[in-house]
Amino acid sequence: MKRLFLLAATLLTAFAAQAQQAIFEKHDTRSPQFNDDGTVTLRVKAPEAKKVTVIGDCIKGGHQEMTNQDGIWSYTTAVLPPELYSYRFYVDGAEVQDAGNIERSRDVRSFMSTFIVSKEEGDCGYLYQNHNVEHGDVAHVWYDSPQLGMKRRMSIYTPPGYDKGKAYPVLYLLHGAGGDEEAWLTLGRTAQIMDNLIALGKAKPMIVVMPNGNASEAAAKTLSISLPLREGRGGSYEESFSDIMNYMKSHYKIKKGADNTALCGLSMGGYHTFRISMLNAGTFGYMGLFSAAVRLERTEKSLEQQLAEHPEAAAQLKALFAAKPHLYWIAIGKDDFLFQQNVALRQYLDKMQYPYEYFENEGGHIWRNWRIYLSMFAQRLF
Amino acid sequence: MKRLFLLAATLLTAFAAQAQQAIFEKHDTRSPQFNDDGTVTLRVKAPEAKKVTVIGDCIKGGHQEMTNQDGIWSYTTAVLPPELYSYRFYVDGAEVQDAGNIERSRDVRSFMSTFIVSKEEGDCGYLYQNHNVEHGDVAHVWYDSPQLGMKRRMSIYTPPGYDKGKAYPVLYLLHGAGGDEEAWLTLGRTAQIMDNLIALGKAKPMIVVMPNGNASEAAAKTLSISLPLREGRGGSYEESFSDIMNYMKSHYKIKKGADNTALCGLSMGGYHTFRISMLNAGTFGYMGLFSAAVRLERTEKSLEQQLAEHPEAAAQLKALFAAKPHLYWIAIGKDDFLFQQNVALRQYLDKMQYPYEYFENEGGHIWRNWRIYLSMFAQRLF
Repeated sequence: MKRLFLLAATLLTAFAAQAQQAIFEKHDTRSPQFNDDGTVTLRVKAPEAKKVTVIGDCIKGGHQEMTNQDGIWSYTTAVLPPELYSYRFYVDGAEVQDAGNIERSRDVRSFMSTFIVSKEEGDCGYLYQNHNVEHGDVAHVWYDSPQLGMKRRMSIYTPPGYDKGKAYPVLYLLHGAGGDEEAWLTLGRTAQIMDNLIALGKAKPMIVVMPNGNASEAAAKTLSISLPLREGRGGSYEESFSDIMNYMKSHYKIKKGADNTALCGLSMGGYHTFRISMLNAGTFGYMGLFSAAVRLERTEKSLEQQLAEHPEAAAQLKALFAAKPHLYWIAIGKDDFLFQQNVALRQYLDKMQYPYEYFENEGGHIWRNWRIYLSMFAQRLF
Repeated sequence: MKRLFLLAATLLTAFAAQAQQAIFEKHDTRSPQFNDDGTVTLRVKAPEAKKVTVIGDCIKGGHQEMTNQDGIWSYTTAVLPPELYSYRFYVDGAEVQDAGNIERSRDVRSFMSTFIVSKEEGDCGYLYQNHNVEHGDVAHVWYDSPQLGMKRRMSIYTPPGYDKGKAYPVLYLLHGAGGDEEAWLTLGRTAQIMDNLIALGKAKPMIVVMPNGNASEAAAKTLSISLPLREGRGGSYEESFSDIMNYMKSHYKIKKGADNTALCGLSMGGYHTFRISMLNAGTFGYMGLFSAAVRLERTEKSLEQQLAEHPEAAAQLKALFAAKPHLYWIAIGKDDFLFQQNVALRQYLDKMQYPYEYFENEGGHIWRNWRIYLSMFAQRLF
């Protein structure tokens, strides 16, 4: 059932009004416009502007100047492979979102307009879109963290059919520094990835738990306005993780044991995965470190040296592998600034003969890679 | 425990980085900046711009020119009473969000930066903020609508304590034309209003159900990219409403009967409330029509005349009031373009001696009023 997903639906639904308007205007104002040749044209109306540029991961080489035609500025990308792309305009130096595009995502404090290119069923762009398949639900819940001394918010994906009473395995999915409990749902496209992988028969139905990894925050900053920060006891997020697992045990129908429990995360969330899995040997049957920060302290010392100086941590890592987890998966891009820390991790694991799997691809410390890693890791679970 | 809520938390958390930066810059770049005198200063950096304006409900009289000081453009509002305010900049004619403000809301296809002013506990600004009180959870679920022939998405607020097994009364809360299942949560601030009213002891704990009132849409357009529209049978949303109530009965712990069931909505959602309550006499003990469109067809005829020509509808309305509901509440602003339709409704209800309550305030067809109406209506329920 391969079809060409040229985002016809997007054009029809989101831009119908604009398209009608365009008929009566001298120049096309649609944006983004998906061209037959696989390029995408971006446009912004700025009749009084002197200079308009566009940046984004759909555009090569930083700021690119846009072409002005009677106040409509446009830029056409190269042919784009399947992916979720982000971009933003600068009008006389001021940050501008695409007014023609309802799709916007926040990354920490930065907003970008986004669009998805998909060529066929199952490609990465397809995985990030909503399709007419069975959908899981997403809940934003507040759990009690006695260890941090506050109520905290987290997001929970439950797979299609969850409400029928069956128990499901659980993946704990952790964000990076600057992210929050919404990051994996928005730029991470977790609900779409899980819906589509499950519908395609490529992943088992599972619950995905997305907590907030900043121990001082009760919730995402967009929500926590006037919620006091650092109201809690200031404990360690890693140590408080059992509060999250306890909430899941008492509030959701989950399958128990390491065979049914997975943990992964990106960047700081990769560090959290590294540390939380060490603190809980035998708890997680599957671990995924995506572009992970892997060290015990802020130091230039090798991981081996750090572990030599922290024998209790070395013992925890030993216990983790003694419990024979199904998968310890390390993924990183060649240009990632944390690449060397992951080399050091692999050197140590090799030396200790601790089994792991490694995936390396192009690119750096970016959401494109984390969506790919989640899509791959989820297919290996349970 | 009255305190001055001057959004100190906002300043501390969201703008700490910027504030630090500002120390080293010639001019303050914080935005929004809450001044001691109750005004708010908005700023945007646009060194190359010729003209920068700001519009919003915190600013009187349409586009106001901003003042340029070395490329930082600023505007200071009048003293602002408690409220949630929206604004947007225009840099040389291009739409610009406040890069210094993480709070943004979408209304249909339009994005605005937002901030909240609150002076004391319990004022409307206070109700719209997150405070350190017990929080309810919010779920985005997909329910099956056999009558519309598709799976559809809706949002559900459950009050603090919901998971302890007790059943709760239910308010069905409907959005206007152009809105979707996210509208009442974002600009409507439903979760904050309910959390705060419940914490203050001013509203009973209840479940709030926010469906998507566009019968042709499976979900919000931001989510439905590549989900086919009009895939269903094209039935009437009003008639399909029992699918929503059936889902709630089978999936949530709800108290049954009219004493425990309320329905309200804004604009088109007010029309839906008017029609759905007529189609289900005795089902809802409480009804709220907020800035409602109140007519049976597209006509200039009076409501009385329309009901005379549709005796089945007149009989439904009679049955509705024969069931003796606790409250039929009509609220509208003096400047609302639907004001006359509500005059006609009240004339008809008066003539028939059907009991109702009426609230009229300043302003037009705006979210400010709908938040106020929800805050008032919720306090009257159950």
